[in-house]
Amino acid sequence: MLNCIEQLKFDQDGLIPAIAQDAKTKQVLMLAWMNKESLQLTIQKKQAVYYSRSRQKLWYKGEESGYTQLIKKIRTDCDGDVILLEIKQVGGISCHTGRTACFFTQLDEKQQWQTIAPVIKDPNIIYK
Amino acid sequence: MLNCIEQLKFDQDGLIPAIAQDAKTKQVLMLAWMNKESLQLTIQKKQAVYYSRSRQKLWYKGEESGYTQLIKKIRTDCDGDVILLEIKQVGGISCHTGRTACFFTQLDEKQQWQTIAPVIKDPNIIYK
Repeated sequence: MLNCIEQLKFDQDGLIPAIAQDAKTKQVLMLAWMNKESLQLTIQKKQAVYYSRSRQKLWYKGEESGYTQLIKKIRTDCDGDVILLEIKQVGGISCHTGRTACFFTQLDEKQQWQTIAPVIKDPNIIYK
Repeated sequence: MLNCIEQLKFDQDGLIPAIAQDAKTKQVLMLAWMNKESLQLTIQKKQAVYYSRSRQKLWYKGEESGYTQLIKKIRTDCDGDVILLEIKQVGGISCHTGRTACFFTQLDEKQQWQTIAPVIKDPNIIYK
């Protein structure tokens, strides 16, 4: 395992949260989780590899959809327990709902969640 | 408790990760954690209140330093298990190290972490 990975703090499940931000637009696209192995693969392949908590296995982002994330910069925070990826989002869709970003739900003035971003491509077509 | 909060997914410790992004520059400043109470206070006060996992209590961001975070937008992701805050960072310093952002450590080509952002104000002066 790379020394730079050993210097980070992973949680009791061996995971660290990773924020993906579009390198150009600076839009925050998603937050997913990484274990040591997925972070090492991310560094080596220069392409985002997460760890899926629901499926309990490595998640090669875009392997099914083709919407991979090419790594531009990798940062960590002052505590070494969060990762920030600056990426180029291939195809412009990072969310499994077919949207640019996962953060398409916003609180309105009545304290109700509203959908604020359109579906770019039907997920039934993306994951056929 | 507000209904919009009950609709979110908190983890086994009753927490949800919250990303703070500068509303103007779009820089990702920090990631901290919230419990239901801190999120409700954040919504009501329009000012970031986190939950400190190390101190195990509410963390009124900026209460000591004066560097509060004024809420512009609150979003959640497609799974409802992450919060994204768009904020105005009072004083331009969000990190306890006296830097603009917590993500001042970047991986270089030799796979070593490098500090890439300056201290704006000495923490000994901030927290006197």
